[in-house]
Amino acid sequence: MIAALLVSLAALHTQAPVSDPQTLGWMDGFPPPEERTIRYPDGGFFDFPQLRWTVCHFDQLMPTRRTARGLGAPAPLPVSLRQDDIDAIEFTPMGADAPMSWRQSFDANYTDGIIVLHHGRVVYERYAGCLDEGGRHAAMSVTKSMVGLLAEVLVAEGVLDDSAPVTDYVPELAESAFGNASVRQVMDMTTSLDFNEDYSDPNADIFAHGAAGSALPKPADFEGPRTYYEFLQTVEPLGEPGVDFSYKTVNTDALGWIISRASGVALPDLLSERIWSRIGMDQDAYFTVDSIGTPFTGGGMSASLRDFARLGQLMLDEGRHEGEQIIPAAAVRSLAGGGDRTAFEAAGYTALEGWSYRGMWWVTHNAHGAYMARGVHGQAIYVDPTAHMVIVRFASHPNPFNAAIDPTSLPAYQAVAEYLMAAPEP
Amino acid sequence: MIAALLVSLAALHTQAPVSDPQTLGWMDGFPPPEERTIRYPDGGFFDFPQLRWTVCHFDQLMPTRRTARGLGAPAPLPVSLRQDDIDAIEFTPMGADAPMSWRQSFDANYTDGIIVLHHGRVVYERYAGCLDEGGRHAAMSVTKSMVGLLAEVLVAEGVLDDSAPVTDYVPELAESAFGNASVRQVMDMTTSLDFNEDYSDPNADIFAHGAAGSALPKPADFEGPRTYYEFLQTVEPLGEPGVDFSYKTVNTDALGWIISRASGVALPDLLSERIWSRIGMDQDAYFTVDSIGTPFTGGGMSASLRDFARLGQLMLDEGRHEGEQIIPAAAVRSLAGGGDRTAFEAAGYTALEGWSYRGMWWVTHNAHGAYMARGVHGQAIYVDPTAHMVIVRFASHPNPFNAAIDPTSLPAYQAVAEYLMAAPEP
Repeated sequence: MIAALLVSLAALHTQAPVSDPQTLGWMDGFPPPEERTIRYPDGGFFDFPQLRWTVCHFDQLMPTRRTARGLGAPAPLPVSLRQDDIDAIEFTPMGADAPMSWRQSFDANYTDGIIVLHHGRVVYERYAGCLDEGGRHAAMSVTKSMVGLLAEVLVAEGVLDDSAPVTDYVPELAESAFGNASVRQVMDMTTSLDFNEDYSDPNADIFAHGAAGSALPKPADFEGPRTYYEFLQTVEPLGEPGVDFSYKTVNTDALGWIISRASGVALPDLLSERIWSRIGMDQDAYFTVDSIGTPFTGGGMSASLRDFARLGQLMLDEGRHEGEQIIPAAAVRSLAGGGDRTAFEAAGYTALEGWSYRGMWWVTHNAHGAYMARGVHGQAIYVDPTAHMVIVRFASHPNPFNAAIDPTSLPAYQAVAEYLMAAPEP
Repeated sequence: MIAALLVSLAALHTQAPVSDPQTLGWMDGFPPPEERTIRYPDGGFFDFPQLRWTVCHFDQLMPTRRTARGLGAPAPLPVSLRQDDIDAIEFTPMGADAPMSWRQSFDANYTDGIIVLHHGRVVYERYAGCLDEGGRHAAMSVTKSMVGLLAEVLVAEGVLDDSAPVTDYVPELAESAFGNASVRQVMDMTTSLDFNEDYSDPNADIFAHGAAGSALPKPADFEGPRTYYEFLQTVEPLGEPGVDFSYKTVNTDALGWIISRASGVALPDLLSERIWSRIGMDQDAYFTVDSIGTPFTGGGMSASLRDFARLGQLMLDEGRHEGEQIIPAAAVRSLAGGGDRTAFEAAGYTALEGWSYRGMWWVTHNAHGAYMARGVHGQAIYVDPTAHMVIVRFASHPNPFNAAIDPTSLPAYQAVAEYLMAAPEP
């Protein structure tokens, strides 16, 4: 598949502007024309190219719950742009012969916004599509890494015991596949769940999960689970937990439930109390919710590009912000240190050889010790401790698979890291 | 009705704590217990006492569209509390014999938050129910006054011609009751509309308006209008416009449409561009929206207490903030000066004798030249230019009628104004 995609790369990076949501005029006008109207109950809002509008407007389609930034002033994010230098950086996409420039990769990846921090200063920032500095974008599975981080924080504080069985916190999960798993196995996704997450399969379990989590009224003949919590109780085991890593969104929904029970606080509020209100965020973030207000912790968060950059910097600084320890350094070290690479290998990600997964973060184990949060259609937080670099990218790539996006993004991140290390001052 | 209500005032001010949404535990727990769960499709979310939770959580029930505060630092709101002095102020409720204290009126009115500014400084601030300083509350029809203010701004700038027929901006309204009205008649609600807004009548048109504006899927056999814009086109005339004031929510929905067409900007964004991002607001505000993203300009806004206080201060200062003219003074003067008192008299508000309505604000024509924004269940912005005082109140009174709330609030506002004028420094 990667080879087939690379053939069309030259075309791809000219196609992003063609599908630009502003050019197409989605939801533009009073009222918008029928053929440019996106309605939640109609479905289709996450088909391409509509998704290029939707990624910035989930709150306009469905109910949400905010993660408040608090009432203080935003923290300054100092800027020393090296935009032209970075645009010109060349790298070779995985599996390709010809080089590509950073600027070309921006369009090739259908990027809606990307920011690079070096030693805490903004050296690159560019927006397109539906996004600008004042906007917010769906984080998709980057959400999971926020939930994993909160879990690591609670573990470091002793509020959550990661060696305890899930059922210590959520007895309702006893009969499900989570019934014989530990909290740590959920955090590292080494549970063993019979849960099909192939977005190209219309019968995949992920769609039943979505139906349960929809805030819309259920059809009269609907017999499935009606909330995220109800859905989690129906997940069946595939094998024994604790052996192989297997990426399943429902682990994070279960972890959200566990965290809420352990802390007594709803997850969007916990994220606000512990982080979002404490490091000078520009904007509130928010989570989509189901019919009873449960946040979609597996992927429902939206936030601004700069605020995720601040979060990435907090990770790079091992939990410190402006001289204050906001979250325990041990929490960051736990996930940045990575997980079981043998368990990870079983998942068969050819583009991610030697990586691991820990606390809902993806750990490269490369020479720089870089680690990532990753979300479908191209969302990413990339933390490179050696280069003192943080990259955050939002995108609306037509292809949901990271395997289609990694070849033109992972080498680009490494190239910018090397450039910054070689030329630390402009 | 007022007499009957006053008999039970002593009881009422002890009942607010009993119906406190935190005490009752609405939506509390993971999941909340079934009997404390509020779902949008189930209805009932705006029945008492559920509404005491809902007024702070509309975004958790339905889709919304935000009015961004922008990315700057909040403006300082200096504080010189005179809490005990003001709590002790006594006034005589309209039609009553016995005095009531300000503190008693707080509970009697089911107040969720009230703030008093004097010369721009906070002299009183108290929260209860679902609200605190970091929260947001439904403004209900106070929303209308934001829309009216924006209309006055566009008129003062020459972007909107208030003498022009509505159909110059929205030709789709030609066959409706708005078809022979002017923009000014809509702004002052002297259109003549066959529209029943009696919330105690289950067949009232306001419920058909709500059905059109609901973002939920319509039932299969639904034949009515499906959006706010479609609904407005069905409103029939009652008589000739330009004679009597008659308070009808749909005027503001029509005005929202007119403003969007005149400015080319969606109303939540226009409010952000012109005001919300320019005077140091603490928080984003938001509007509920229909199935195609149209904001409910007749009453769908939520915001924080302190931010409405900043808005009230902007009105008091005739559009200036920190030395800068944010909106034209002429816009504020137009509505603060009031409208046609004879036209107003026709509406028969016995508690509001001598008042008028202008640009979607209620003007007292009292000796202080005070004027108000007013919303169902007790929402208010009260601007007293003579006392240099702004009061903002959010409430969740069981009774939707202002006639039930005015007797214990309007005289209280006047009493505080007189106290502040008599004792300008503590």
